[in-house]
Amino acid sequence: MRIGVLTGGGDCPGLNAVIRAVVRKGVQEYGHGFIGFRDGWRGPLEGDTVRLDIPAVRGILPRGGTILGSSRTHPLRHDNAVRRIKANLAKHDVEALITIGGEDTLGVAARLSDDYGVPCVGVPKTIDNDLSATDYTFGFDTAVGIATEAIDRLHTTAESHMRVLVVEVMGRHTGWIALHSGLAGGANVILIPEQRFDIDQVCAWVTSRFRASYAPIVVVAEGAVPRDGSMVLKDGSQDPFGHVRLSGIGEWLAREIERRTGKEARTTVLGHVQRGGTPSAFDRWLATRFGLHAVDAVHERDFGTMVSLRGTDIVRVPMAEATAKLKTVDVKLYEEAGVFFG
Amino acid sequence: MRIGVLTGGGDCPGLNAVIRAVVRKGVQEYGHGFIGFRDGWRGPLEGDTVRLDIPAVRGILPRGGTILGSSRTHPLRHDNAVRRIKANLAKHDVEALITIGGEDTLGVAARLSDDYGVPCVGVPKTIDNDLSATDYTFGFDTAVGIATEAIDRLHTTAESHMRVLVVEVMGRHTGWIALHSGLAGGANVILIPEQRFDIDQVCAWVTSRFRASYAPIVVVAEGAVPRDGSMVLKDGSQDPFGHVRLSGIGEWLAREIERRTGKEARTTVLGHVQRGGTPSAFDRWLATRFGLHAVDAVHERDFGTMVSLRGTDIVRVPMAEATAKLKTVDVKLYEEAGVFFG
Amino acid sequence: MRIGVLTGGGDCPGLNAVIRAVVRKGVQEYGHGFIGFRDGWRGPLEGDTVRLDIPAVRGILPRGGTILGSSRTHPLRHDNAVRRIKANLAKHDVEALITIGGEDTLGVAARLSDDYGVPCVGVPKTIDNDLSATDYTFGFDTAVGIATEAIDRLHTTAESHMRVLVVEVMGRHTGWIALHSGLAGGANVILIPEQRFDIDQVCAWVTSRFRASYAPIVVVAEGAVPRDGSMVLKDGSQDPFGHVRLSGIGEWLAREIERRTGKEARTTVLGHVQRGGTPSAFDRWLATRFGLHAVDAVHERDFGTMVSLRGTDIVRVPMAEATAKLKTVDVKLYEEAGVFFG
Amino acid sequence: MRIGVLTGGGDCPGLNAVIRAVVRKGVQEYGHGFIGFRDGWRGPLEGDTVRLDIPAVRGILPRGGTILGSSRTHPLRHDNAVRRIKANLAKHDVEALITIGGEDTLGVAARLSDDYGVPCVGVPKTIDNDLSATDYTFGFDTAVGIATEAIDRLHTTAESHMRVLVVEVMGRHTGWIALHSGLAGGANVILIPEQRFDIDQVCAWVTSRFRASYAPIVVVAEGAVPRDGSMVLKDGSQDPFGHVRLSGIGEWLAREIERRTGKEARTTVLGHVQRGGTPSAFDRWLATRFGLHAVDAVHERDFGTMVSLRGTDIVRVPMAEATAKLKTVDVKLYEEAGVFFG
Repeated sequence: MRIGVLTGGGDCPGLNAVIRAVVRKGVQEYGHGFIGFRDGWRGPLEGDTVRLDIPAVRGILPRGGTILGSSRTHPLRHDNAVRRIKANLAKHDVEALITIGGEDTLGVAARLSDDYGVPCVGVPKTIDNDLSATDYTFGFDTAVGIATEAIDRLHTTAESHMRVLVVEVMGRHTGWIALHSGLAGGANVILIPEQRFDIDQVCAWVTSRFRASYAPIVVVAEGAVPRDGSMVLKDGSQDPFGHVRLSGIGEWLAREIERRTGKEARTTVLGHVQRGGTPSAFDRWLATRFGLHAVDAVHERDFGTMVSLRGTDIVRVPMAEATAKLKTVDVKLYEEAGVFFG
Repeated sequence: MRIGVLTGGGDCPGLNAVIRAVVRKGVQEYGHGFIGFRDGWRGPLEGDTVRLDIPAVRGILPRGGTILGSSRTHPLRHDNAVRRIKANLAKHDVEALITIGGEDTLGVAARLSDDYGVPCVGVPKTIDNDLSATDYTFGFDTAVGIATEAIDRLHTTAESHMRVLVVEVMGRHTGWIALHSGLAGGANVILIPEQRFDIDQVCAWVTSRFRASYAPIVVVAEGAVPRDGSMVLKDGSQDPFGHVRLSGIGEWLAREIERRTGKEARTTVLGHVQRGGTPSAFDRWLATRFGLHAVDAVHERDFGTMVSLRGTDIVRVPMAEATAKLKTVDVKLYEEAGVFFG
Repeated sequence: MRIGVLTGGGDCPGLNAVIRAVVRKGVQEYGHGFIGFRDGWRGPLEGDTVRLDIPAVRGILPRGGTILGSSRTHPLRHDNAVRRIKANLAKHDVEALITIGGEDTLGVAARLSDDYGVPCVGVPKTIDNDLSATDYTFGFDTAVGIATEAIDRLHTTAESHMRVLVVEVMGRHTGWIALHSGLAGGANVILIPEQRFDIDQVCAWVTSRFRASYAPIVVVAEGAVPRDGSMVLKDGSQDPFGHVRLSGIGEWLAREIERRTGKEARTTVLGHVQRGGTPSAFDRWLATRFGLHAVDAVHERDFGTMVSLRGTDIVRVPMAEATAKLKTVDVKLYEEAGVFFG
Repeated sequence: MRIGVLTGGGDCPGLNAVIRAVVRKGVQEYGHGFIGFRDGWRGPLEGDTVRLDIPAVRGILPRGGTILGSSRTHPLRHDNAVRRIKANLAKHDVEALITIGGEDTLGVAARLSDDYGVPCVGVPKTIDNDLSATDYTFGFDTAVGIATEAIDRLHTTAESHMRVLVVEVMGRHTGWIALHSGLAGGANVILIPEQRFDIDQVCAWVTSRFRASYAPIVVVAEGAVPRDGSMVLKDGSQDPFGHVRLSGIGEWLAREIERRTGKEARTTVLGHVQRGGTPSAFDRWLATRFGLHAVDAVHERDFGTMVSLRGTDIVRVPMAEATAKLKTVDVKLYEEAGVFFG
């Protein structure tokens, strides 16, 4: 069989590990051939391909990014997209597609597979860990590790100078990275998009921490929002979104804490550092196993499915279901962490 | 309630994270008091205690080792052990014990709890990940991360010089560290205690790797054993166990590969580097959650139980069952990795 | 002899390593006694002291921050400061002071030693590496290492998405961290305070990098300033300083590059992550040797001097001279790096 | 001008950084062309070459090993070697050679340049830091960092179990890695080849450390030798060299300490982990600057010279002198570290 592979959406450490596992097992155990499509759905849409054999995947296991490139192209918005994709697959004798991506990429794969007869198998990928059908997605552990290391470093400097240190981490819609890294790093306040925060409560935690003679670390997900929605700019203008574009929630929090508590505050914005570079051992393991099982699914022609982690097992779930719902941080889990606040 | 805490067996990154979580939640949410027993079961046996309150657990989250010390004391082998332990608990008004340890430590706790009415709750701990009742134990992810980083570093030097590099990792009875780090590091051969290896097969993989113009990395668990059991010393003596004590399986393998393939081979023995130092973010998260749930179990007087990870949930299992069986590497899982050998 | 020790100014990985070396050698080889003063010059000014013996320095070598605390208290601005300091030293039988700090802290020590007969020996400390009398200061190598690792991680994500990634690093007055980390990380543009930059040139480098099919990384010191000084806010207001307070030069650059080149740009602001946490091996070595040689200088009553690195030797220089001049990045060195721009 | 480049001897993190800097500056600033010779001197001897232009050096800065391969081929031992090398250089229009290597590789380059009119410029490379003409060689800082991190990890496990932990590090003839990592890691005993050690003294330090309630870490260079030369095997045979081949000085020390002090001891042998993987920021900076200055020297036809670090400057020294003498650890420097022993 000849199998196409593509990676879509934001990049994530572990993408290359999936690609390598797919090709190694597919070629060596099943004798299948592979072809890469470039830049997510743009590849099959425009017929942009790249050679994908065993030499092509040598040495890529520890490398971040994706050798296939990525994009946020959403093909079903293009005219004749399905027809063009089918034509390009046929042109390259591709009988099945392994699509590695998040909600959007897999949502397209699910529709192509279920509605249009393009045989797809999905591999879930999101740095944010917010796909409901799998315990974890690769990339998440790496991001949490990087954020935790940053928090570790901030503790000593916070305490030597009795300063508030605010760390803004990834997470527009869900607070998984903030929650895990905040807990692992011993943060004193963790703010997540799922729970609007009360700036007075934040300042109370900050102040109580100082009373215990320690300086606080505040971890905030980029998508966290204050309860009253009023992020007042210093110059008096009141547009929270315009403001957020200017400096982000981390910078806003630091200034607000300074203003309200009189304590010096500084901000770290980790940004894309969290999604780049070599994957953690856990993420390589998970990505590799996802790859091995995805090629099994294709080999068994079990299309429309996605591989998924359940405990320590890799299982298959219907792709359409898997991408239907965002996995948010449960309020009980957040409250469990609350014992460490303040 | 006044609750005793002890840590037994080999040390493991994350022990301090458990202790901190237990004390923080126990004091702040439930109003319980705590006392530490030193050096595993030696503490309650000899009445050796240490203060354990919130100031005592400040700053210990990222620190390896255990502030309570550890030992391999097996109390039930001592005369009057149960009576002495009960007397010492009574003397310090201790109504329940949280015992953090591996098979041995928890085995004792199970018997004390089930047979002698000493109320215990267990927290599983083994760097080797070989406890059957939990998906993972803390410390394991850290060990795998350290071994994987070492393998990463060896790749460049292997290839610049076309040398075989052998890495000996922990694992006397199970190959979990070898399997996970070998897979994550892209090893070309992985040898585990569960599957006796054939030295001819190992040399065939080594040779085939060189034919592809790359130099091989061999990851071997310290407890791996060759199929024919003959580890011949250079001086002609044939005692495999005496020999293994002299230099370990890693050193033996390197010499044997050199002798049989004519390729230069070098060995790295990671040793206790794998179980020391700061825990990974994953291990801190797991250890912290184990601690939070262990104190819940004590608070609910659910004794004789052990906390355990199932998927992303912490559940309780009977301690006696939990410690009954070693979790070994399944042959199917090992074969899954085999696609990367050679 | 009884010797006081204090740490002043911003914290820096390696401070504890100096303190440990001072005490270990002073006590064991010379039989001197030590006392710590808290929070920089506030300690001797207010007589705030802390025990400083061998048990007090156990285990602090790898720890960031300073066990003595720090502050930016500038004592000579206080009434009767010299008299109060002398009185407090006399009260604790302190015959000499080891002052660990940057330009300000050492400037005070130089005046106290040279003009007022308070016997001081200095140890240079600045994360920015901008003291002219020494080849390197400890903390700098750690900061460069952290920034370089961040840049490494950004490369893969830059290239998978063809985005500009801007990293803002420390350096208000000098560009040493930006230059070293930018060179070590393979940045495509490095902007330093010593050389006003031309935003058109920056955009030209960015564009040329994209033409070579790679995505650029821009490293910018927090104190870098555009040539024409006009940092125009989106809302039309033109106050560069107000703006910089809002979001920093990194954020400004990303927006400006987006606006002018049409390429997506994202920012990472490392902030205090660069000055916290465990020191690098180089910094521990340097800090330890500074400590050993500082106590030698005190023992030999060679006051008014500062220890300094010259090649691989530790030498002594007059403290007054050492703190007189800022060590800026030489234009030739910056041009040497220019071969990698674009 | 057309310039050849080769890398010889053991690999070392930073080799690729040199190659990249040489090519970037040579092509962009001077308009020179480059060609790579494979596997050290084997390349020019056998005419084995590889393309070396700007695309060939993209992305190699952070990568360990060498894209040119390496070997220990010593050409002057081959018949007609000089004639063959000259013929191969002529065949490829190569007018000058940049040779990156240690004592052996540069010794050959010095003779070729000085005695046979083959225009060479040298770049010093040794992980061991034992070249007398330069303050540091790249690779050394990386090795020290890796060894220090291992020692850090061992501290917690040493103290949780009151065990002696022995770490064997690189250094056959000089103890630079042992000394720097031992000092940076807070080792309690450091043993180097330059000073024969007294096993009784080692055991006395170990015992005194335990008396202070801490467990000792012993760092030993692989080339360290006991004073009396008697390394007695357990089975009674007395051949120290045969024994050392079996298990190395680290393993021997652990057993000997166990036998003499009655304390448990364990060994870590870091091996080639120390010379592989990504270079530290310091090593990338040094290697890059060496590369930039080496191509300057060739451009100025200043042959027979080697680039060298003096303080923070890169200077040129005669290659013949530079390779004449091994830089060993000075006894005074070793004694300086002695304050931390025991």
